[in-house]
Amino acid sequence: MLPRGRPRALGAAGLLLLLLLLLTGFFLLGGYPEYGQLREAAAYDGDPPAGHGGHNRSACAPQPPLPPKCELLHVAIVCAGYNSSREVVTLVKSMLFYRKNPLHLHLVTDAMARNILGTLFRTWMVPAVVVSFYDAEELKPQISWIPNKHYSGLYGLMKLVLPGILPSSLTQVIVLDTDVTFASDIAELWALFAHFSDKQVIGLVENQSDWYLGNLWKNHRPWPALGRGFNTGVILLRLDRLRQAGWEQMWKPIARRVLLTLPATSLADQDIFNAVIKEHPGLVQPLPCVWNVQLSDHTLAERCYSETADFKVIHWNSPKKLRVKNKHAEFFRNLYLTFLGYDGKLLRRELFGCPSQLPPGAEQLQGALAHLDEEDPCFEFRQQQLTVHRVHITFLPHEPPPPRPHDVTLVAQLSMDRLQMLEVLCRHWPGPMSLALYLTDAEAQQFLHFVEASPVLSARQDVAYHVVYREGPLYPVNQLRNVALAQALTPYVFLSDIDFLPAYSLYDYLRASIEQLEPGSRQKAALVVPAFETLHYRFSFPSSKAELLALLDAGLLYTFRHHEWPRGHVPTDYARWREARVPYRVQWAADYEPYVVVPRDCPRYDPRFVGFGWNKVAHIVELDAQEYELLVLPEAFTIHLPHAPSLDLSRFRASPAYRDCLQALKEEFHQDLSRHYGAAALKYLTALQQPQSPA
Amino acid sequence: MLPRGRPRALGAAGLLLLLLLLLTGFFLLGGYPEYGQLREAAAYDGDPPAGHGGHNRSACAPQPPLPPKCELLHVAIVCAGYNSSREVVTLVKSMLFYRKNPLHLHLVTDAMARNILGTLFRTWMVPAVVVSFYDAEELKPQISWIPNKHYSGLYGLMKLVLPGILPSSLTQVIVLDTDVTFASDIAELWALFAHFSDKQVIGLVENQSDWYLGNLWKNHRPWPALGRGFNTGVILLRLDRLRQAGWEQMWKPIARRVLLTLPATSLADQDIFNAVIKEHPGLVQPLPCVWNVQLSDHTLAERCYSETADFKVIHWNSPKKLRVKNKHAEFFRNLYLTFLGYDGKLLRRELFGCPSQLPPGAEQLQGALAHLDEEDPCFEFRQQQLTVHRVHITFLPHEPPPPRPHDVTLVAQLSMDRLQMLEVLCRHWPGPMSLALYLTDAEAQQFLHFVEASPVLSARQDVAYHVVYREGPLYPVNQLRNVALAQALTPYVFLSDIDFLPAYSLYDYLRASIEQLEPGSRQKAALVVPAFETLHYRFSFPSSKAELLALLDAGLLYTFRHHEWPRGHVPTDYARWREARVPYRVQWAADYEPYVVVPRDCPRYDPRFVGFGWNKVAHIVELDAQEYELLVLPEAFTIHLPHAPSLDLSRFRASPAYRDCLQALKEEFHQDLSRHYGAAALKYLTALQQPQSPA
Repeated sequence: MLPRGRPRALGAAGLLLLLLLLLTGFFLLGGYPEYGQLREAAAYDGDPPAGHGGHNRSACAPQPPLPPKCELLHVAIVCAGYNSSREVVTLVKSMLFYRKNPLHLHLVTDAMARNILGTLFRTWMVPAVVVSFYDAEELKPQISWIPNKHYSGLYGLMKLVLPGILPSSLTQVIVLDTDVTFASDIAELWALFAHFSDKQVIGLVENQSDWYLGNLWKNHRPWPALGRGFNTGVILLRLDRLRQAGWEQMWKPIARRVLLTLPATSLADQDIFNAVIKEHPGLVQPLPCVWNVQLSDHTLAERCYSETADFKVIHWNSPKKLRVKNKHAEFFRNLYLTFLGYDGKLLRRELFGCPSQLPPGAEQLQGALAHLDEEDPCFEFRQQQLTVHRVHITFLPHEPPPPRPHDVTLVAQLSMDRLQMLEVLCRHWPGPMSLALYLTDAEAQQFLHFVEASPVLSARQDVAYHVVYREGPLYPVNQLRNVALAQALTPYVFLSDIDFLPAYSLYDYLRASIEQLEPGSRQKAALVVPAFETLHYRFSFPSSKAELLALLDAGLLYTFRHHEWPRGHVPTDYARWREARVPYRVQWAADYEPYVVVPRDCPRYDPRFVGFGWNKVAHIVELDAQEYELLVLPEAFTIHLPHAPSLDLSRFRASPAYRDCLQALKEEFHQDLSRHYGAAALKYLTALQQPQSPA
Repeated sequence: MLPRGRPRALGAAGLLLLLLLLLTGFFLLGGYPEYGQLREAAAYDGDPPAGHGGHNRSACAPQPPLPPKCELLHVAIVCAGYNSSREVVTLVKSMLFYRKNPLHLHLVTDAMARNILGTLFRTWMVPAVVVSFYDAEELKPQISWIPNKHYSGLYGLMKLVLPGILPSSLTQVIVLDTDVTFASDIAELWALFAHFSDKQVIGLVENQSDWYLGNLWKNHRPWPALGRGFNTGVILLRLDRLRQAGWEQMWKPIARRVLLTLPATSLADQDIFNAVIKEHPGLVQPLPCVWNVQLSDHTLAERCYSETADFKVIHWNSPKKLRVKNKHAEFFRNLYLTFLGYDGKLLRRELFGCPSQLPPGAEQLQGALAHLDEEDPCFEFRQQQLTVHRVHITFLPHEPPPPRPHDVTLVAQLSMDRLQMLEVLCRHWPGPMSLALYLTDAEAQQFLHFVEASPVLSARQDVAYHVVYREGPLYPVNQLRNVALAQALTPYVFLSDIDFLPAYSLYDYLRASIEQLEPGSRQKAALVVPAFETLHYRFSFPSSKAELLALLDAGLLYTFRHHEWPRGHVPTDYARWREARVPYRVQWAADYEPYVVVPRDCPRYDPRFVGFGWNKVAHIVELDAQEYELLVLPEAFTIHLPHAPSLDLSRFRASPAYRDCLQALKEEFHQDLSRHYGAAALKYLTALQQPQSPA
């Protein structure tokens, strides 16, 4: 606990300063006395209080002093579920874009949001941002007794219990809804704490609708509020004073009393905050309207922002969010879209002149990057390999598959140019999928719309999409595979590529095969799914092995890369497969790269292989080195569809330097292999000695 | 002219204010008196003047009053050539992002930049932005006598003559180099005019390198300057006073005198401004260093920005631009990249509370969009058709083809997913091309890097790339074609698609055919280039008609869309083409959509067809209606390469609503046709009555 004297002392200095600034304001604005008045005075009279700016932006008078340069600002946000986890990122981006101070984010999350945002912030590596998580589950008992009709559900109410759960050393915090967007430096908002009188504990912007006046429609009975009431999308909380005043003993009785006459809260925490303020108006410090411009359907916010172009925080407080209809929605949408599509990696900006606050791992990473030799022909490859991509796992709502001992997840990765494969893949694979998508922030939004517009994709809750944000010139294929693999939730995974369509029956057949072979009980096994290809981009997919063989005989199908790179699949022994009725074992050979089904805990892909070449081959070597038995499944097949060569592939074909570097990486891979597996790895090196480049 | 008394009065008020604010500053910053000093005082002593911010950002002391809310601010920029025209867009985006005032841009341009930026601003349609162009060609005589070694060439010197060419009603202007990036509201910079004393005419930031001290290397003889001199990347010019003082009679004699002892200017206008200031130090108002943070290789800028995170304008004043090496380059690059990739359409923001300043056409457009019926099944199509896309013509350096009477330009359009076609297309078509690219701002940068990294593409100066910025859900195929078509500079155009590779000989053969047929002298002709397709994505391109026929007979090639949509090309009469030795005439038939060579002034494509379907068919109808003779060329051919179906195509196939809407658009097209061509258009309607949907 801080000594009680300190905040008071601050308050006194603040008051003195205010007085001086006020004087300055009057001096500057002799002609406009109405703008010199304290905003507090205007807050209760029914008009939204005037903000900074407007004509009076020509003076700095209403600006309280900004916090010291490197002062840490605290922000608390309640965030639960997949959609809010996506939404909050846009808020965070807008905040980071304008901020100049170190930030500590206190996130109250459910398990999903914890997982998503934990991964996101760990990989985002923004300097001078600390993130703490608080488990929403533990808070539920404190508020679950309150009936609530608001779309935010129980989570909306959790803001009420923040004083009890945030660290007791924390004296003040800004509390934000996930649906707000910053258009200015949050330090300016933090500075408003200095306006608080000794008795004030909560800073709020007046509600910008007539909701609490109770005249919106017949029989509308809102919770009690002071005038128009206050909106709780943006809150300044003096935690120290709330704790001292016994906040919990304050709001709970009031809420209980109102609930005797009203069936439930309509607007969650906001109803309760307003009921408390109605009884104790001295607790509230009204904030300038520009700090919470509320864009609901029937908003009165125009009264606030038409005076000033200088709004500070936009609040999408309608269930319709961006689709809300009001006169200037388009304008505010553009601001929102700015940060929605903003490349998050650009926010990895240091704060000049503040002590270094690098996130975990960043220092080592900078060191490793600094040690790279720019003259090394593999420089670009090594740089790409070291790149830490931001990762947003389960970008869209997802229902984890029920635990089943032989279930298998299809694992693949793609970028924007393969999006059109998703629908047809869903038709071929009715089971769970874990897909890594390599996208820019803007593309991630296009992807979202693509899924929303597709009945086939929207119907599937068992496909998990993990967005890996683009950075660097080379496609980090193995890093993507590892992300998708790590997020697979079934005991087995089918390691596929996005251009392949599995046999319609493959999902069922694989589960049956896994059950039958019980590979868990004997040696580790990798089940090989034989791969074929069609060179026609419209063809009728074979519904059985017999049909497939007929197409093969007719020259309408080929074994995969039959013409360009037969070594990749020759060991599968297609002649034997033709006749096989039971699974058969095959031996590893150089450059073998079959599509396999393995337990989820299989070795990870080697991230040194980026762009085109050797990325799957190295993984199969690793499986063989770890003594996975390669078993070809007699009824399994998957077919590659034609597509234009990817940019990486064209580059590989064009550039001798690219090939030379790949050769160097291969050699390093083998050195690591020898180090790891000793003499057993010799056979791979011997095989490498007779290299055969892809045709 | 303004009465001279007014600026004086402002100056006095400003001083008084400064004094008061200074007091506030001292009060607040008791512990840091060094930050309270006036910036002016610090300007000459060798250290870059301290900016706003730093520790003293906790006071608003150094902020002069902002200009009134809707005051028009004037900005002048000299911009010449393709690369500067691209560069200036990033500057303009950063300026528009932070601005809250109407802006008037005064652009001094050569013919190329005039053309590019004229188109860009016309299609950008940003409210409250006015653009005026001034012809750089006309200014050359005024400065061409000055020998200059700077990379900006003659254009760098043009800032010197701005007082003479800008409208005489203009009293003050901000002058910017194209390589600066804003990180704050330009109104704050404009506000610094208020600091000018009665005698001061020019506001500049001190140079942040030791260049003018003359000690950088042996025998380095810089132009004369006051101390470190000043940088002219950001200038505040009091035009009224410069005109009164006879600016031209001031700088010219000084420049002539220095040139007696020095062979040339090294830093263009900057040398001359500094020489003038050296003789008349009273003319200059030193500006805070944060308004021109100079990031050259040996910059001393860190002294400025390490004190403050609150820099205002970044200046990439090294010939290396973004590739400059200095300690914090990465940080500033991120800021630059923010605007480089920023979606320019988001800047179409109105200024609240200022009188409407809609650009030409915007009002009608808004009206038309407002009249659309959201329930109309074609709503999305009509909205897309009405969308005005920002267009950046000749995005990359381009050399127009020399005028030749039978020359022909290949015209096509593409988006990011077809980029890999460009190299191979260049190998097949050695002649001029005009290509429209449908890209986001971020993709346009990827495209730029793609071209730079490709020796094949960088070697070609006769390929003009026109970027049409993405907006809306449907691919505006015909709008793109029209952009590419409008920019073709030869008398004839070959209207192709990006997935087609022409015969290696086609360019020469077409020119010979055009010369031979002299279509200009008889009836208008459309020369048909027969289209084929391969279903294999690797195949060996036939080097002659004989080879092509052999492949056709072997079943390795087909006539285009032979399986899916034969009607599109049947009228070409492939059987006849096989034997033909001379061009032969064919008749239009329903759904015919051949690839043709026509005079550049041919009809435009109908922009109502967006996404997939009927976009070329309608154009051929139009050609036929205008009595173009369809002549098939016996030795010409072009071959379609396979690719994954585009998203638009998948959508068309999936959605009955999409097809219904296409049908409605077709009918409207025919109604327009009848209205335009009368009875002659009857045959098209009759043909439509027997519709046959694409298979």
